[in-house]
Amino acid sequence: MTQTHPQIPLSEVGLRPVVLREDGRALRLLDQRALPSQELWLEFTEVEPIARAIETLVVRGAPAIGCTAALGLAVCSLGFPEEPGAFRQACAVALERFANTRPTAVNLFVAISQMREVLAQAPTSTPVPRLREQLKTTAVRHVEDDLAACLAMGANGASLMPEGGTILTHCNTGALATAGWGTALGVIRTAHRWGRGIDVLVDETRPVLQGARLTAWELQQANIPARVITDSMAGALMAQGKVAAAIVGADRIAKNGDVANKIGTYTVAVLCAHHNIPFYVAAPWTTIDLSLESGREIPIEERDHNEVHMHGGTRLTPEGMAACNPAFDVTPANLIRAIITERGVHVPGELV
Amino acid sequence: MTQTHPQIPLSEVGLRPVVLREDGRALRLLDQRALPSQELWLEFTEVEPIARAIETLVVRGAPAIGCTAALGLAVCSLGFPEEPGAFRQACAVALERFANTRPTAVNLFVAISQMREVLAQAPTSTPVPRLREQLKTTAVRHVEDDLAACLAMGANGASLMPEGGTILTHCNTGALATAGWGTALGVIRTAHRWGRGIDVLVDETRPVLQGARLTAWELQQANIPARVITDSMAGALMAQGKVAAAIVGADRIAKNGDVANKIGTYTVAVLCAHHNIPFYVAAPWTTIDLSLESGREIPIEERDHNEVHMHGGTRLTPEGMAACNPAFDVTPANLIRAIITERGVHVPGELV
Repeated sequence: MTQTHPQIPLSEVGLRPVVLREDGRALRLLDQRALPSQELWLEFTEVEPIARAIETLVVRGAPAIGCTAALGLAVCSLGFPEEPGAFRQACAVALERFANTRPTAVNLFVAISQMREVLAQAPTSTPVPRLREQLKTTAVRHVEDDLAACLAMGANGASLMPEGGTILTHCNTGALATAGWGTALGVIRTAHRWGRGIDVLVDETRPVLQGARLTAWELQQANIPARVITDSMAGALMAQGKVAAAIVGADRIAKNGDVANKIGTYTVAVLCAHHNIPFYVAAPWTTIDLSLESGREIPIEERDHNEVHMHGGTRLTPEGMAACNPAFDVTPANLIRAIITERGVHVPGELV
Repeated sequence: MTQTHPQIPLSEVGLRPVVLREDGRALRLLDQRALPSQELWLEFTEVEPIARAIETLVVRGAPAIGCTAALGLAVCSLGFPEEPGAFRQACAVALERFANTRPTAVNLFVAISQMREVLAQAPTSTPVPRLREQLKTTAVRHVEDDLAACLAMGANGASLMPEGGTILTHCNTGALATAGWGTALGVIRTAHRWGRGIDVLVDETRPVLQGARLTAWELQQANIPARVITDSMAGALMAQGKVAAAIVGADRIAKNGDVANKIGTYTVAVLCAHHNIPFYVAAPWTTIDLSLESGREIPIEERDHNEVHMHGGTRLTPEGMAACNPAFDVTPANLIRAIITERGVHVPGELV
């Protein structure tokens, strides 16, 4: 028997962490460094502060940083020169700055390409006010497309979530990581709305603790039963038969189905394979980078080692200690049961 | 060619974290909660504070808590009644209190049994001063035996550490976890002294961060090259061929070779199996509990969830969030290449 489920109406989407101010003249970001203890919104109108917000994780999550770059350029362009040549030059510099913030998530580069394309397509004679309008239209569409993709992923993936089962997730892939609703966490949200009776194990996701801070907060707000665990606990819980499925997001997917995602994802995938637990990836179709044959070619960001050494103002390790801090890892396609996009449910090796 | 290596002389052992004060009238513990930022020694003369020191991780590590209970009883007995019946009763109550501190590490129960045996073997007529002397002798021997076992484990295991290789370890199994030198970290120390040119990857070991705080500190003091990683990074580094072997300690080993150890150990073992990397366990022979057929029977301590929720004074997760906090997990014998004890190098399934 196939059940039909209502679509989630846009009015019920809830939190949207990357938005234009009502007058359209500033970018508003929910400061993800301050969560869950504080809900702090920051406003931006200039390129460098927006680039720093991406670099310092005011906003993070592959789709969300794409949205930030798109809306960010639209907003910043209001202050760019009125002379078309200088305006285009300022746009190019801004987009170049945004492109140099974080290397791994492809969504950022997709958003930047869309904005570049607006400028490339517009005749040289196009007046600056018209260019600004086109940039804004494209940026807003980028964001709305991302939200629509999240809702479609939710509907495509929800029935894969085992009824009454405990779902493990890693990092934050919720509303905070996207234009709204979420990718992997969007699938979990939709499954919950559909009454599948799931509960969630949240990997805390060291070093930045996006799971403990952000995913836990979102699940609590959505009244979805959840427990936080350290990243080291998932294996033991799987061995006890306490995990029915795992679902994560993606920062970039190569042509062969290899997936780059938050550091620790690969370990979850290996553990799932060892325990024969389905491991799913949910991401918008734009996360697939057909220019890369395999995951080996995905650039992996090495972040500041102080993310490992410090927490808050407290140093955890001895002064002078060395560390590693790769922010992402690559999970090979053969460990992934399915990739869920807005287009459907895909076998990782058969994306193209 | 077999190389011969000098024994590590006792004079070069260095740090011993569980000792009697020079006058023999107090137990001195290096406060492991304060490391690495502070080297703070605490003194104890009474049962309840010693039990609380074990429970609150002033001292931790399976062999070290055994040493604490043994020396602790010897010291506390100086204040027990001079009447033999009352003295024996006070000893029994003290040992019972120590037995109820932490359930998983068997070494604690071995030490307690040895102390009980002293009292059981002494004729009822034995004067209290003589009983005190016997308790002290037995306690000191327990500690010296542990140190000797660590040095022997080091010598037995060092040549298994791949020459010039990177060794992954989890939690703290060094001097701080034992009477001195260490179990798994003792093997690493000895391999380093033998000039095997190894370097160490230290799992930070959430939630209590024994790796980031304690193992990193010990390795730094010993000038052994080391880098701290989050527990979620080991898999990615293995996939890149950057880990030559892993070695961990044990809190209890069942007859069939299953090993209970710090939460996250099982994940390291699964990752090693997936990448065909040797996974070793080093522990004194007394860690083997022949009364248990398999790891399923090992009691696993569930600790306060605030260890997951909080760091220092800062709350990581949202208020009201649920968590899990099993302090240990069980690694099945089939994932373990060898168990190293003071008696030699054993196949896990062939301990008896």
